[in-house]
Amino acid sequence: AQAYKIAVLPGDGIGPEVMAEALRVLDAIEKRYQVTFERTHANVGGAGIDNEGKALPETTVNICRASDAILFGSVGGPKWETLPPDEQPERGALLPLRKIFGLYANLRPAIIFPSLTGASSLKEEVIGGGFNVLVIRELTGGIYFSQPKGIEGNGRDRIGVDTMRYSVPEIERIAHVAFQAARKRGKKVCSIDKANVLSSSVLWREIVTTVAKEYPDVELSHMYVDNAAMQLVRWPKQFDVILCENMFGDILSDEAAMLTGSLGMLPSASLAEGTFGMYEPSGGSAPDIAGQGIANPIAQILSAGMLLRFSFGMVEAADAIDNAVATVLDQGFRTRDIYQKKEGEKLVNTKEIGDAIIAAL
Amino acid sequence: AQAYKIAVLPGDGIGPEVMAEALRVLDAIEKRYQVTFERTHANVGGAGIDNEGKALPETTVNICRASDAILFGSVGGPKWETLPPDEQPERGALLPLRKIFGLYANLRPAIIFPSLTGASSLKEEVIGGGFNVLVIRELTGGIYFSQPKGIEGNGRDRIGVDTMRYSVPEIERIAHVAFQAARKRGKKVCSIDKANVLSSSVLWREIVTTVAKEYPDVELSHMYVDNAAMQLVRWPKQFDVILCENMFGDILSDEAAMLTGSLGMLPSASLAEGTFGMYEPSGGSAPDIAGQGIANPIAQILSAGMLLRFSFGMVEAADAIDNAVATVLDQGFRTRDIYQKKEGEKLVNTKEIGDAIIAAL
Ligand SMILES: CC(C)[C@H](C(=O)O)[C@@H](O)C(=O)O
Ligand SMILES: CC(C)[C@H](C(=O)O)[C@@H](O)C(=O)O
Repeated sequence: AQAYKIAVLPGDGIGPEVMAEALRVLDAIEKRYQVTFERTHANVGGAGIDNEGKALPETTVNICRASDAILFGSVGGPKWETLPPDEQPERGALLPLRKIFGLYANLRPAIIFPSLTGASSLKEEVIGGGFNVLVIRELTGGIYFSQPKGIEGNGRDRIGVDTMRYSVPEIERIAHVAFQAARKRGKKVCSIDKANVLSSSVLWREIVTTVAKEYPDVELSHMYVDNAAMQLVRWPKQFDVILCENMFGDILSDEAAMLTGSLGMLPSASLAEGTFGMYEPSGGSAPDIAGQGIANPIAQILSAGMLLRFSFGMVEAADAIDNAVATVLDQGFRTRDIYQKKEGEKLVNTKEIGDAIIAAL
Repeated sequence: AQAYKIAVLPGDGIGPEVMAEALRVLDAIEKRYQVTFERTHANVGGAGIDNEGKALPETTVNICRASDAILFGSVGGPKWETLPPDEQPERGALLPLRKIFGLYANLRPAIIFPSLTGASSLKEEVIGGGFNVLVIRELTGGIYFSQPKGIEGNGRDRIGVDTMRYSVPEIERIAHVAFQAARKRGKKVCSIDKANVLSSSVLWREIVTTVAKEYPDVELSHMYVDNAAMQLVRWPKQFDVILCENMFGDILSDEAAMLTGSLGMLPSASLAEGTFGMYEPSGGSAPDIAGQGIANPIAQILSAGMLLRFSFGMVEAADAIDNAVATVLDQGFRTRDIYQKKEGEKLVNTKEIGDAIIAAL
C-alpha cells in the first residue's frame, strides 16, 4: 500500500483535542483507501516553548522536513502573550514555517454551510442561501518578509520601517495558483491591490493581467483593497476567487471568514511549489474552552481533507471527508459554537461529532 | 460680523449637486449666526483635468491656501479611469492636497442613524439600535508617502517597492487626536496595528501606550488589524474610537462605513495642525446618478457641519446641522438611496431634502 508521512503539530489550547478527531478520520481513510499515513508528532507554539524552549524547535523543523505534509493544529494563549512578539507562539512558529518550507500560496475558503446560514452576522437577504469565496493569499513575500525592516535610531528619533516588495516571479506564481483554482470553481478571479497608491500594487496589477492571458476561460477583475473590504460586506456573492498579496490577504481573509459566521469550521492550506503543504484551521486556539472536550473539530478535519487533496492527490478521499461533514451538519449535529437551539439540532461534544463524521464516511 | 473664507471644490459626478445643498445650508447658518462665509469655487478632480489640465491645478491650491478651510465634494468617474493612476482624479487630487496642507488627521465617523438601521447588511441582533464608531486615521505618513517607493529594474527583473515608515512625533500627534476625541465620546480608544509582524507597528503600539498615560480617563486597547476586520463584523458596538495608521485606516474605515449601510450619509474631516481642515463626504462621485438631481446631499451637508465645528469652532451651528439632519430623517424624508418603502417615508430629491433640512434648522 502507498505510504505517506505526515508531521502532526497539534499546538496549544483546543489544538490537541481537535487534532485527535482529525487523526481518527485519517485512520478511517487509511482503512477505506488502503493507504498508510505515518504520523510523527512534534511540538509547536506554546507547547514548543514549554517543552523545548522555542515556538518552533529544531526537532519540529526536522520532523516536518522528513514528512510529505504538515497537519497543524493551532497555537497561542494567554500564558505566552507577554513574550516579545517574535517569540510568541503564533508569530514565532507560523512565519518561520512559511519561510523555511516556501509555503507561498495560502488558500483560505470562506464558505457558509447551507445548514448554518443563521450563524452569519449578515442579513439573510445579503447572504441568501450562503456564499463560497476562496481567498488566495501570497504568503512568503510583501511587507511580512522584505528588508529593510526594523526600528532605527534612538529615543524620540526612532523610526519604524517596513518594506513591501514584490518581484515579477513572486506575483506570477501566486497568480497561476489563483487562475488554476478559479478554473475548477466559478471561473472568476478578483485581484486585490492598492494600485492608486502603491508601486508594488502597480506591478502586481500588471503581472496578474499578463498571467490572465493564459487563462482566457477565467474572468479577471481588479479591485482596490478598501473597496474590497466594503464589497465583502455589501454583497459577498459577487466573489469567486479573491487574489491578494500577503497583508491584504491577512485582513480580507479574516473579514470574509468572520462574515460566514462559521470561523470554527474553516480549514486552510499553505502550499509550497510541488506537493508539500501545511494545513490548519482558520480559527484560533480558543484557550477559554480548551480541555473541556467541547471544541468544534470540523475545521481541523476539513484541513486534513485539504491535505489529502493537495499534497497526496487523494481527491476522492478528500471529497468523502467534505461530504461526511456536510451530511453530519444536515443531520443536525452541532458542537456548542454552532448550536442555535433550533428544532432538529443535536448538541454534541468534540468526540461525538468526530464519531458522527467517521460514521458518515 | 465674523468672516471666514471657504475654498469650495465641488468636483465631479454628484459633487456639484450635493455641494449646492451644503452651500444653501451655509447660507442659512450665515443668517442665523451672523457670520459671513466667503466662498471661492475651484476645480478639482476630473473637473480640474478637463478645465485646467490636472486633477489639482495650481489655481486651486492657491485658492485653498488663501482660505480657512476646504469644502470638498467628490471626484472621479469613468471618463478619467484610463489615465495613469497618478493623474487620476482621486489619487491626483487627494494625496497632494493631504501632503501640501499637512492634513494628518482623518476623522471618519461610521454611524448608523437610528431611523436607518434597516439599511445595514448586518442583522438587527448584531447592530441592535445602531452603532457609532469614529475611525481616526493617520493621513500623511506610512506606506502612502514614505520613500523608497517605485518600480526598480527592467522586464522580468522588476521589483515593486513601497515603504511603511513612522516616526515618534507622527505617531504621537495622531494618538493625541484620538485620545482627545475619545474624551468627548465613549472614552475608549482601540489602537490598530500589526505589531506581531511590522516594526512600524511595534513602535506605533509603544508610542500610543505612552501617550495614553496623559489620558488616564480614556481606556486604551490594542488590536491586530486582521482581528479588527473581523471584530467590526462580529460586534461593531464594542468600538468607540478606532485609531489607525494610514493604510489600515483606509481599509477599516471603509469597512466600518459600509457596515452602517449609510455610506451616502457619512461626512469626514481631514485636519492639519491648527484649525485648517478639509471636509468631504465618505462616499464617491456616483457618476451613474449624476445630473439627475436625486443624489443624497446629507454627507456633504454634515461635512459642512464638521467644517464649522473643527475649523471655525462653531459648535452650536454644527450641532444645529446635525440635529436638523436627524429631524428630517425622523420626519421620514428619504432620497432614493435610503428609501426602504416603509410607511411614513417620503421619497424626495436632492433639493427637496435640502429644503427640509434648512426648514428644520
Ligand atoms: C499570527 C500572524 C503572524 C499570522 C499572519 O499575520 O499571517 C496570522 O494572522 C495568520 O493569518 O495566519
Ligand atoms: C483615492 C485614494 C488615494 C484614497 C486613499 O486611499 O486614501 C481614498 O481611498 C480615501 O480613502 O480617501
